[in-house]
Amino acid sequence: MIVPSLAISLLDSGVWLALLCGIIGLGFAGYLIRTILSRSPGNERMQEIAAAIEEGAKAYLNRQIMSVSAIAIVIFILLFLTRDWFTAVGFLLGAVCSMAAGYIGMRIAVLSNCRTAQAATTSKTEALRTAFNGGAVTGLLVVGLALLAVGLFYKIGGAILGSQDKVIGSLVGLALGASLISVFARLGGGIYTKAADVGADLVGKIESNLEEDDPRNPATIADNVGDNVGDCAGMAADVFETYAVSIIGAVLVGFLTMNRSPEAVIFPFLLGGISVIGAILGIVWVNIRKAGATQVLIEAVGASALVSAILYWPATTLLFPGTIQVGNSTYTPGQLYLAALIGLAMTGVIVAITNYYTSTAFRPVRKIAQASETGHATNIIAGLATGQHATALPVVFIGLAIMSSYYCAGLYGIAVAVMSMLSMAGIIISLDAFGPITDNAGGVAVMSELPKSVRSVTDELDAVGNTMKAVTKGYAIASAGLAALVLFGSYVSELKSHFASIGGKDLADGAFSLERPDVIIGLFFGGLLPFLFSAFSMDAVGKAAGAVVKEVRRQLQAHPGIMTGQDKPEYGNCVDIVTKAALKEMIVPALLPIVFVLVASFFGPVVLGAVLVGTIVTGLFMGISMTSGGGAWDNAKKYIEEGNHGGKGSLAHQAAVTGDTVGDPYKDTAGPAINPMIKVANIVAILIIPIVFR
Amino acid sequence: MIVPSLAISLLDSGVWLALLCGIIGLGFAGYLIRTILSRSPGNERMQEIAAAIEEGAKAYLNRQIMSVSAIAIVIFILLFLTRDWFTAVGFLLGAVCSMAAGYIGMRIAVLSNCRTAQAATTSKTEALRTAFNGGAVTGLLVVGLALLAVGLFYKIGGAILGSQDKVIGSLVGLALGASLISVFARLGGGIYTKAADVGADLVGKIESNLEEDDPRNPATIADNVGDNVGDCAGMAADVFETYAVSIIGAVLVGFLTMNRSPEAVIFPFLLGGISVIGAILGIVWVNIRKAGATQVLIEAVGASALVSAILYWPATTLLFPGTIQVGNSTYTPGQLYLAALIGLAMTGVIVAITNYYTSTAFRPVRKIAQASETGHATNIIAGLATGQHATALPVVFIGLAIMSSYYCAGLYGIAVAVMSMLSMAGIIISLDAFGPITDNAGGVAVMSELPKSVRSVTDELDAVGNTMKAVTKGYAIASAGLAALVLFGSYVSELKSHFASIGGKDLADGAFSLERPDVIIGLFFGGLLPFLFSAFSMDAVGKAAGAVVKEVRRQLQAHPGIMTGQDKPEYGNCVDIVTKAALKEMIVPALLPIVFVLVASFFGPVVLGAVLVGTIVTGLFMGISMTSGGGAWDNAKKYIEEGNHGGKGSLAHQAAVTGDTVGDPYKDTAGPAINPMIKVANIVAILIIPIVFR
Repeated sequence: MIVPSLAISLLDSGVWLALLCGIIGLGFAGYLIRTILSRSPGNERMQEIAAAIEEGAKAYLNRQIMSVSAIAIVIFILLFLTRDWFTAVGFLLGAVCSMAAGYIGMRIAVLSNCRTAQAATTSKTEALRTAFNGGAVTGLLVVGLALLAVGLFYKIGGAILGSQDKVIGSLVGLALGASLISVFARLGGGIYTKAADVGADLVGKIESNLEEDDPRNPATIADNVGDNVGDCAGMAADVFETYAVSIIGAVLVGFLTMNRSPEAVIFPFLLGGISVIGAILGIVWVNIRKAGATQVLIEAVGASALVSAILYWPATTLLFPGTIQVGNSTYTPGQLYLAALIGLAMTGVIVAITNYYTSTAFRPVRKIAQASETGHATNIIAGLATGQHATALPVVFIGLAIMSSYYCAGLYGIAVAVMSMLSMAGIIISLDAFGPITDNAGGVAVMSELPKSVRSVTDELDAVGNTMKAVTKGYAIASAGLAALVLFGSYVSELKSHFASIGGKDLADGAFSLERPDVIIGLFFGGLLPFLFSAFSMDAVGKAAGAVVKEVRRQLQAHPGIMTGQDKPEYGNCVDIVTKAALKEMIVPALLPIVFVLVASFFGPVVLGAVLVGTIVTGLFMGISMTSGGGAWDNAKKYIEEGNHGGKGSLAHQAAVTGDTVGDPYKDTAGPAINPMIKVANIVAILIIPIVFR
Repeated sequence: MIVPSLAISLLDSGVWLALLCGIIGLGFAGYLIRTILSRSPGNERMQEIAAAIEEGAKAYLNRQIMSVSAIAIVIFILLFLTRDWFTAVGFLLGAVCSMAAGYIGMRIAVLSNCRTAQAATTSKTEALRTAFNGGAVTGLLVVGLALLAVGLFYKIGGAILGSQDKVIGSLVGLALGASLISVFARLGGGIYTKAADVGADLVGKIESNLEEDDPRNPATIADNVGDNVGDCAGMAADVFETYAVSIIGAVLVGFLTMNRSPEAVIFPFLLGGISVIGAILGIVWVNIRKAGATQVLIEAVGASALVSAILYWPATTLLFPGTIQVGNSTYTPGQLYLAALIGLAMTGVIVAITNYYTSTAFRPVRKIAQASETGHATNIIAGLATGQHATALPVVFIGLAIMSSYYCAGLYGIAVAVMSMLSMAGIIISLDAFGPITDNAGGVAVMSELPKSVRSVTDELDAVGNTMKAVTKGYAIASAGLAALVLFGSYVSELKSHFASIGGKDLADGAFSLERPDVIIGLFFGGLLPFLFSAFSMDAVGKAAGAVVKEVRRQLQAHPGIMTGQDKPEYGNCVDIVTKAALKEMIVPALLPIVFVLVASFFGPVVLGAVLVGTIVTGLFMGISMTSGGGAWDNAKKYIEEGNHGGKGSLAHQAAVTGDTVGDPYKDTAGPAINPMIKVANIVAILIIPIVFR
């Protein structure tokens, strides 16, 4: 008796149940914030430095929001005029939430950094927990926010508009808002953080032999601000976007291919809600378990996945008691459950593969370290080759995942796999955000002249954080590739439904055939987008970093007292330079996907569709090779600094620093920004269908 | 009266006429060899060095032929058993001719290098002509050989087999032989030349402050041998392949889509034949015109293209007096002529674009030089970004060319455009081969201690040669992308005709639609091939170069007398190391395309087709970005050496040397080898259709 009534109630209130889980997540995040705040923020000097970092980060984010808002308002008005008011409101909601996610990410990180440094003075475990909990707050807030934003928009919109069709169409507006802001946040933050980092390293480490975070380096505050606006704020906006877009994509595909059945819409929310519970249990695990940092973190991810895998089963069978109709095919609930498991498994597989290519424990990183012995050039060649090698296994597994989840439940099966993969974001972000917090904690420790032992604790955690960051980037780009494919599927479905609704025109069977030269041209043109996007982003970092180098050199020459510790460097100048550069340079690449889609739309829906696929194909390769290659370079340097191949100060180390510096814009600017960029292209294409194809 | 009879005679003897042009080209090459041989080979020391280089190059090529022959024999037997004896014979012919082309390229270069050095002692113009004529011999021999091989095989095969269908099917075997050998030649030669070059530079230039080609550098002979086996032999084999495959592709497409009409088969031969005459006139132009080197060379290309453009008109209208039927559409001779002109125009466009990105006169190279001021890392970032930027315009123009030539005459229009683009190979190769000859002449001059003025003449010509080399690589990869598309078209046509012939199975309309997940997976899997191929090639160079560095360091430490000039270095050791490394490391990447195609064929003809397209898409981007980026790095170094940004010995120069070194495997190993690699994949796919899809 209880089971059927549960099934009915899932149909009635499945979305509300998911939203409840989201609220529980937010509540738990609030509890974590309280525990973090209850820790000591350290001595006055430490608080002063944390405040300086916070001030720079706030100032930058405020200006970024100003710049981006102008563009957002233009798009809002365009959507209002050409689509409908509700889609425009959705766009605004997505944009605001994405900005808020970024702000939250930054605030929590700044709160946690000095407290992590302080905790490191007493215990490594405490430092790990403080940093991890800081990351976990971001993870839970971002996921909770995304669930609530999409869910409430869907529920309230449904009530206001009185039409499922309309509200689901408007969800695409929300997706665009989230994606567009997150491209800006990733790019602006990425340019900021890497220009400061590269600039600080080039003069500080290589020319003047200063340690990382030495307070005599005029770019050091800018470098630490960068960690917060790039690795924390940018990443949080990015994950908010990926998560929101994955739900929306799954809802859209389910709605369009499953004959508008409500279960299809509810299921993705349920998966997301369940995994919030999984994430909370994983976070608790880190706070009670005593073991090596890496082991604890991996166990937490495993525990989360296990909880999700178990709870997915009743959710699936209760919501879909009978067979499931997708398009013209029929599937079983077991098959749908399998698709969800495939998503969870993909998380593990991608994490393991990226870990292999970027951890100091395995051959690829050690090969780069080895190549550093023969100089800068061989280090770079080895790193580039490693990045390219690193594309192979993820692409093969992505192929397998597509095939098997499609076999499970058609296009909806792929969407479900993507959603279940993304549902792990809560715990995965906890790992990712952990990195920049420990990085900053190290900066605070050095600048406030805490004992060396503190720095060595934060350094150890930082090395773990480096691998985790690389691993989560692999996860992000792989899931983005899959999510983009779902969006492409939505594009095609939407196109057909649009042509059906206006009558007359129609897409021929095989309109998107590779035999057509316009499809091939579309693939080429779309394939160009990630290359051009990456070129602009790398250029931006190079330019801005060059300006920082010149400013640092100028200060060191004008005030020789800086190097002896008598004069204080003018930190503000470097902060100013990178702020302006980042805001200026992010505009062109961030608008590229929109321009490409609009231009392609002139050549008709088929060329546009091919452009989307072309972008996904080369974007996936570029994204993986850049983030993995960059991570491998970074850790090859760390490996040498551990005393291998001559250790710090050796020729090999110098070469490794060059590799690390090249890897910086690779892995933290261009690479990760490709992820939201691909999705912006796909979402814009879906949005303009009714506007341009009449 | 005369016109109709000419038309009839073109139908009868068009191929023979083209072959006659090929023979005229060979005759003219013979004449050029005589004029080169009549020049003084220089003093005894020069001849000794040239002989040492020749000996190393011969030894390497002989061993390469041995290694490759083993693989070729296996494939010959497989073809014999699974296809038919004539295809197997075609394979053998293609392989032998490709090897011969490589050998010829190397022999001529070695004959010309000391003579160019000797000519440089008296006059720059004479040095230019000697080097250019050396390149021209290779150009004419390669093109003539390709025309004759394909033409005679077609004519004699037709007579023996008594069936057009069979002989044209067997042509694919010839294409495979040519392509496969050229992948090996490009890769083996590329690994050899760049391992030696990088190794020599890293210790010689950076660690020991030796000039290029200093006889005290133990790797210097290996470096010069490398120019001959890589830039000359590898390039000659590659161009032979591209040319042969372009004719074969055009013949195949014409035959399959134009209802087996003989004109369709004759036309590509005619275009090739005509352009041999154009090339000869261009070569004569260089030998009579007095002006700056770059100007003369550009004029020669223009003159060649003009002659071809004029002669194409009567050839087209005589061969096709009425309308032309391709598939279900009808075209005019004027449209076909336009397609041929598009190919010629594309040559000019691609040359101009690549020149912009790789010449010291324009912004991209200067930006890299500028970025070198702030160190190794910013140089690398700028170079990587430049390579990515450089993909944009070529891809846009390739798209335009595909669209417009398809509009002219369907798939056959694209094939004709490719063939007319490739028909320029005779003159284009003359430019390309000119580079390594002057490079070697410089080496001979320095090693035999000729006056500095000689070296400055060869250096000036070398800089021109650098740009020409980069430009011709852009031409090669762009034409390869187009040629591969034609091959993909042949694959689809062949597939349909195969299914029609065996009855039963058939390809659904829209079988290759992007809506199918297996097509997407195929695109991903195919897109992986160039990344993996490049990763293996770069790794190979890095590994082999590291071994050279260690050997050079060992020699310099063990025999301090080398640096003072008292001891003679053991050149042979380095030659041995790179020979072994190149032969060993080329095997895996060269076999990758075959493995990929065989694996993909298990998943059916649709996945295989998508794999081919995926490879073409990412291969084009990788090829262009690597060759252009590498060329830009090279010339950024040259630009600094001209005295900009601090000139030789400055920090900027050191950074630029790093960039140049990274660019070496980019532009001379991985990048250009992608070109034949894409085609091997496509040809193997065509060949295995009747074997695997039953």
